[in-house]
Amino acid sequence: MSAPLLTLLKIGGNILNDEDALSRVMGRFSKLEGPKILVHGGGRAATELASRLDVPQTLIEGRRVTDEQTLRIAVMVYGGLINRSIVAALQALGCNALGMTGADLDLVRARKRAPEPVDYGFVGDVTAIRAEAILPLLEQGVVPVIAPISHDGSGSLLNTNADTIAQELACALSVKFRVRLVYSFEKTGVLTDVQSPDSLVRKMSKKDFDHYRSHGVISGGMIPKLENAFRAIDRGVGEVIIGRADLLDLLLLGETGTRCVHES
Amino acid sequence: MSAPLLTLLKIGGNILNDEDALSRVMGRFSKLEGPKILVHGGGRAATELASRLDVPQTLIEGRRVTDEQTLRIAVMVYGGLINRSIVAALQALGCNALGMTGADLDLVRARKRAPEPVDYGFVGDVTAIRAEAILPLLEQGVVPVIAPISHDGSGSLLNTNADTIAQELACALSVKFRVRLVYSFEKTGVLTDVQSPDSLVRKMSKKDFDHYRSHGVISGGMIPKLENAFRAIDRGVGEVIIGRADLLDLLLLGETGTRCVHES
Repeated sequence: MSAPLLTLLKIGGNILNDEDALSRVMGRFSKLEGPKILVHGGGRAATELASRLDVPQTLIEGRRVTDEQTLRIAVMVYGGLINRSIVAALQALGCNALGMTGADLDLVRARKRAPEPVDYGFVGDVTAIRAEAILPLLEQGVVPVIAPISHDGSGSLLNTNADTIAQELACALSVKFRVRLVYSFEKTGVLTDVQSPDSLVRKMSKKDFDHYRSHGVISGGMIPKLENAFRAIDRGVGEVIIGRADLLDLLLLGETGTRCVHES
Repeated sequence: MSAPLLTLLKIGGNILNDEDALSRVMGRFSKLEGPKILVHGGGRAATELASRLDVPQTLIEGRRVTDEQTLRIAVMVYGGLINRSIVAALQALGCNALGMTGADLDLVRARKRAPEPVDYGFVGDVTAIRAEAILPLLEQGVVPVIAPISHDGSGSLLNTNADTIAQELACALSVKFRVRLVYSFEKTGVLTDVQSPDSLVRKMSKKDFDHYRSHGVISGGMIPKLENAFRAIDRGVGEVIIGRADLLDLLLLGETGTRCVHES
């Protein structure tokens, strides 16, 4: 008997800032059969709140430095507003959602990143996933909704990359499930020419990725996303799909998006 | 065989604004034997955030009007910052906490209060508690930590009184457990003379309460708290204890605080 299929959907990017688009994605997600998990990113709301509160935001190489005030904002926005609103929306769609951070049930434990060479503040690198904490919930049809916040086991919450949490969770769950991991946002997938939607790469192996990267075809935020994707593939996750959140059904049918595979 | 004892601790008032005091309470709470639940109020943090965001707060008869912006603040502070921080603190103490609002697992459903005679905005009156949603969690030793936010089942979160959520939960759980409900804050309990700690009422029946109230001995915020307490007693909750959060052990031993009982 093959392991049951589990869908792990990560939503990020501008989808989180667009109430109508988000609501459509939730509508589709709520209808998916079988065990499923949603991991969400932060969107613009934290930056907006920081600006209204006059908390200056520092970016180093595109990554946000999380000082104490910024951590509070992240916990309020990611762990509060976004997480709780998604849960309420899913409940209204008949989907028995449970909003969590990594501290809840000790699901995602992390270590505060070393301050050298760059001090990113209260940013956590995942050290352990306690997947067994959510197995009974999944069996009962509960749908975990997970914010990009982990904890260090000593009382501190830590800001943690949502793609990485999704990848680590997918790997931990692949012991029990055939996991399909979906990285969704407002883009069509991996493009070899960002100006041209026609340049969508439909299928990609690690070898393809290395080739594209070394030739500068893929750059920016797509690189860490694909690194996460291929780490997941290497560690037993069946497939990783990257594409538009609002085309979730087509993504899962393989009719759009980029499918990351072990061997092409 | 008698039903197992469950402790439902509600913490509110200034305890939530005092990190050291809160940490001591969590230390004691984490050591309590048997199934337990924490319900927390909001404290001053929401008012402070509203002020920093220039969101004017309207109070009518001591109750906060929850407009859309204030609801967002409540969800961020109660459902995010306070709830998630308590969970991280409890996890560090070896207590397997799970932070929830009423939307999670559809635990607390409410109806938006009618706008007549006073429009309180996004305030919810509890209509249903789905206690069965947390029974398997309690059996696994999970400790639910519940924020004073409910949902309407149609996608809206609602600001909801924490004392009432604690009372309704206590009643719903008293079918399965002997529930002791503790309303804790920074005060010693019910005083017949607010100036004098010696005037603490150690034991109180509904009849005593009616007497004190009609004679103006008890007033202000203590009245709704005691109404909740006696509603719980009427509906099968074994005992309701009111007193200082930082004296939790003594409160539970009956050595301080006010014990509300069926008959005195």
